[in-house]
Order: sequence, then C-alpha cells, then structure tokens
Amino acid sequence: MKPLLFAMPGNEQFTARLAELLNAEVGALSTRRFPDGETYIRLDSDVVTRSVTLVCTLDRPDDKALRLLLAADAARGLGAVSVGLVAPYLAYMRQDRRFLPGEAVTSQSFARLLSANFDWMVTVDPHLHRRSSMAEIYSIPVGVCHAAPRIAAWIRANVANPIVIGPDVESEQWVSAVAISAGAPFTTLEKNRRGDREVEIIVRDIDQWRDRQPVLVDDIISSGRTMEMAVGQLIARGFSAPAIVGVHGLFAENAFERLRAAGAGLIVSTNTVPHATNAIDLCEVVHGAMSRQQPALPTRYR
Amino acid sequence: MKPLLFAMPGNEQFTARLAELLNAEVGALSTRRFPDGETYIRLDSDVVTRSVTLVCTLDRPDDKALRLLLAADAARGLGAVSVGLVAPYLAYMRQDRRFLPGEAVTSQSFARLLSANFDWMVTVDPHLHRRSSMAEIYSIPVGVCHAAPRIAAWIRANVANPIVIGPDVESEQWVSAVAISAGAPFTTLEKNRRGDREVEIIVRDIDQWRDRQPVLVDDIISSGRTMEMAVGQLIARGFSAPAIVGVHGLFAENAFERLRAAGAGLIVSTNTVPHATNAIDLCEVVHGAMSRQQPALPTRYR
Repeated sequence: MKPLLFAMPGNEQFTARLAELLNAEVGALSTRRFPDGETYIRLDSDVVTRSVTLVCTLDRPDDKALRLLLAADAARGLGAVSVGLVAPYLAYMRQDRRFLPGEAVTSQSFARLLSANFDWMVTVDPHLHRRSSMAEIYSIPVGVCHAAPRIAAWIRANVANPIVIGPDVESEQWVSAVAISAGAPFTTLEKNRRGDREVEIIVRDIDQWRDRQPVLVDDIISSGRTMEMAVGQLIARGFSAPAIVGVHGLFAENAFERLRAAGAGLIVSTNTVPHATNAIDLCEVVHGAMSRQQPALPTRYR
Repeated sequence: MKPLLFAMPGNEQFTARLAELLNAEVGALSTRRFPDGETYIRLDSDVVTRSVTLVCTLDRPDDKALRLLLAADAARGLGAVSVGLVAPYLAYMRQDRRFLPGEAVTSQSFARLLSANFDWMVTVDPHLHRRSSMAEIYSIPVGVCHAAPRIAAWIRANVANPIVIGPDVESEQWVSAVAISAGAPFTTLEKNRRGDREVEIIVRDIDQWRDRQPVLVDDIISSGRTMEMAVGQLIARGFSAPAIVGVHGLFAENAFERLRAAGAGLIVSTNTVPHATNAIDLCEVVHGAMSRQQPALPTRYR
C-alpha cells in the first residue's frame, strides 16, 4: 500500500510535492476551531494498517503543537501502524541549556513530547548549537537533511562574483561549505547577543572583498536583527546592497520590512517556512531524507 | 516543607487564594514569548524535592497547552518530586466519541497528554456527558469537585421566588440538585444541536411557573446560543428577564453581548474562568478537592 501523507494546515503545497516524489497518497484532513477555541480534527482517509506521515512545519509552534499532537494520536487511534513527522522547520532548538537557574530547557521538553507521539521525524538543518546530534535529545530516529548544497546552487546561479558571509563565528563551518560549493570566498562576522532583539555585530577585516557582491547566509532569520546590523555595517564599509539567504525564513515581527529599510538587496529563503521570499525548493532534499529513514516501522504501539 | 504552587499566566488570583487556604507557598514563574513565537519559561523558586502544583485553567486551550506541558517538564527536570495540575476549567471534554468516521476523539488524546505529564489533577465539574467517570479517560488520579452547592447558595441569596431551568434533558440531574438545595422548583428545556453555533430550544409546559423568576443554569456557557434561545423563548412566554448562571463562563465570541441583547437579566459565573461575570468563588471548593487528593505522592519518575 502507498504511504499516506497528511498536510497540517499551511503545509498543503509542500505535502503535495513530497507525495509526488514519494509516489505517496495525500490524505484528506479537516480541522477547524470550535467557538470555544478547541480544535476539531477529522481524517477522511482510511489509515488502518497504513504508514502515516504528518507534514507540519513548526514556525510559531505554540498554536500548532497541540493540534499536531492531537492529529498524531487520532491517526494512531484510527489504526495507523506508524505515525511519522516531517517538520521542515523544527522549533524549540534554541533553549538547549539553562542559561539562568530555573530556566526550562525547552529543546529537551519539546523533544520529549514529539518523541512520545511520533515514531520518526525528518527535518531540515535543525539549530544544533551546543548539541552535536539530534539523538542527544530525541529518542526517536530523526532524519536530518541540509539546505547548504541548494543554497550554494542558488548563489552560483543568481549572484555574480559573490563573497559569502556568515553572521557569527559558530556559522563558519556551515558557511564555508556553502561558499566552497558556490566557488566563492567566505568570511564570518562576530556577534554578541544582548537580548531577544538586540545584537552587536563586529565586522572583521573584509575590505579586500569590497568589489564582490556580499551574500549573508544564516540558518534562521527570526527577528532579523543580526542581518539588519550586518547589512548596515557592510553598506557603511562601501559594499553594494548585500543579498540575504536564510534556510528558515521566520521573519518575526516586521523583520522583512526592516531588512529592506536597512538596505538589503535580494532577500531569499528556502520553502521550509512558507513566505514570499521562498526561492529555494527543498522538497527533493526532504524526500531524500525520508527515503533514507527506516521503512516506516512502528517503534512502539500504545 | 510547604507545598509549592505556581500560577500560569492569568491564574494569579485563584492561585494566591488557594495558597492561603492550603498554607502553601506561591512560587515565582516568569514566562514570555520570543520574537519567533516560542515560549520562554523560568521557575524562580527552588523546586528540588518539593511537591509542585501548577494552576492553569484551560479555556482557549490550544495556545496554553504547550506552555503548560513545558512548565510541568521544567519543574520535573529541576527536581520536583511530584507535579500536579489544578485546572478549574478542563478543556477537551466534549469530543468524547467519533460522531463521524475519522474524527479525533480529542477528549482521550488530551487526557493522555495531561496524564503523561502530571501526577494528579483537580478540576471543577468536567463535562462528563457520555462518560461516567474521569478514570475512564485519565490514567492519573483526578479530584473532581462541584459547583452546585455554591450555585444553589448564590440563588438562595440573590433570587427571590426562583424557578431553576436546565437547558436540556441531560442536565436534569444536576439542575434538580441545584434547585432542591436552593429550595426552588425546577424544569428542563429540550435542545437539538444543529452545528457549532446553531441550536433549537423547545420549551415544555412551564406556564405554571410564570410568576417566578427564571434562573437558567448550565455547566458551560460557550457560544451562548443555547442560553440565547432559551432567554428568547422564556420572554416570549411572558416570563420576566431570565437570570443566567454558568459554572464555566467561556463567553466565546460575543456571547455576553448577545445574551444581554436577547433580554437576559443577571448573568453570573463562577471564577473557574476569569470573566467580568464571576460572582461565585470556588477557591474553597477546589481547596477541598486538593485536600482529598493523596498527599502528593509521585506516581512515576522519568
């Protein structure tokens, strides 16, 4: 029997494309809110003895998480043999230790919740900062795939004479991989975070690249403050309007407008989070990671 | 050591009053949203080896559930020996079976989530419609307490010559208990639900009570459509402006304004859901149920 994919609201396009690549069926899922704010969910496709995958990117996760967990439990209760999750963007990867006493380590708690309700997961470039692998926090198999090759290809095709720039020293390994694959030189800036919305950016000696088109790349563009500062600094040093490439374009608050106002040129993102800037399609990359997953065997029953 | 209570946002008043009654300590919990929509949580009181209770009423649950689960996991991760939940209003009790094929039985899924993350729970008048006890769906001990005696007392103190009216036949047992305790006659209407927001109300022969002050009572006032129809029918039959008493006053959408416009007189609710109509305090009732709980023994460790 064909694998069965369900799109959680907002993931219809990504799911349809994945289903084509997988030769899978797209199931019908209806959901709405009752007047009292509770969620109604119905799976209109028969899931009995099927391997079910829910596709749900997890930007702005708080309002989506419960609906997703309820849908997974529904699929299982209706007889699915396994329930997997494709989360092109995975939330709650940033609070990965207690910076202050008493803080919730939400990356761990969120991992526990998903691990308890899904049999496997596939995601794109999770923000592994102080962790070296997803297995440290997720107890289910997690297939990780990477946007770097597609970003490099996008730069090769769209930017003449680029210099690839990472926003902080930690991004060096990732940025260098993109740059080498794009046939471009690279450098990184230095970043000091002072709060949820305040960052300081220090530009190291990069004047030798002033004749090149700067391309700022980062894994997540959230408040966009880092990119905003970097754009300002580069322009002040005489660079032409920097292009911005983000894997996960969250564009929180009015980040997109602020980046434009700061003088950014092209602003592009992959389609892990639906946004007007989506220019790099990762459906094939995600499909690859799904294919490398164990043939969806249930790791446990309830 | 004193028990330790934490108020989730919006539950500060209820928590403070409970803590007084229990001679418990109120812990400091900070929470905020990051720009990207994720939740930050910090418990500023030491929970090591303490019995912790989170107080969180669960109206409009979808946006509150994840934060609550993350806070519970944080308390446990920080060393609490047990984590209990006081949910004066408990959500997801209405979808308790599949009315159509493929529907999620969210009352069961939600119960599983809470049962996996808390050691015990206390709630007020959960909407047990087709279920006879919470133990059928919750695998943790659930202390249930009832608003009826306080509602009866409120009617005795505030309504002269009342007739207590339940909105549907199912409410008869509950409404009759309120009425008997209030020293008033009672009756019920008949209700046919046609959708999330559409109901039909049939008034049976109640003309004999036309000289009395009608008091409509229900466990949940959500969209308020039932009450709105009932108010209209009673006024059309020559009754004076009906009073409305709800245990859980959700007042979804513009329910309160619609009830006023329909001709309702006094509209009151208990304080399980904070609202301007709160007139009946249930802190002592909830305190009673907490005292009857097992001395917060951890039922499991992680």
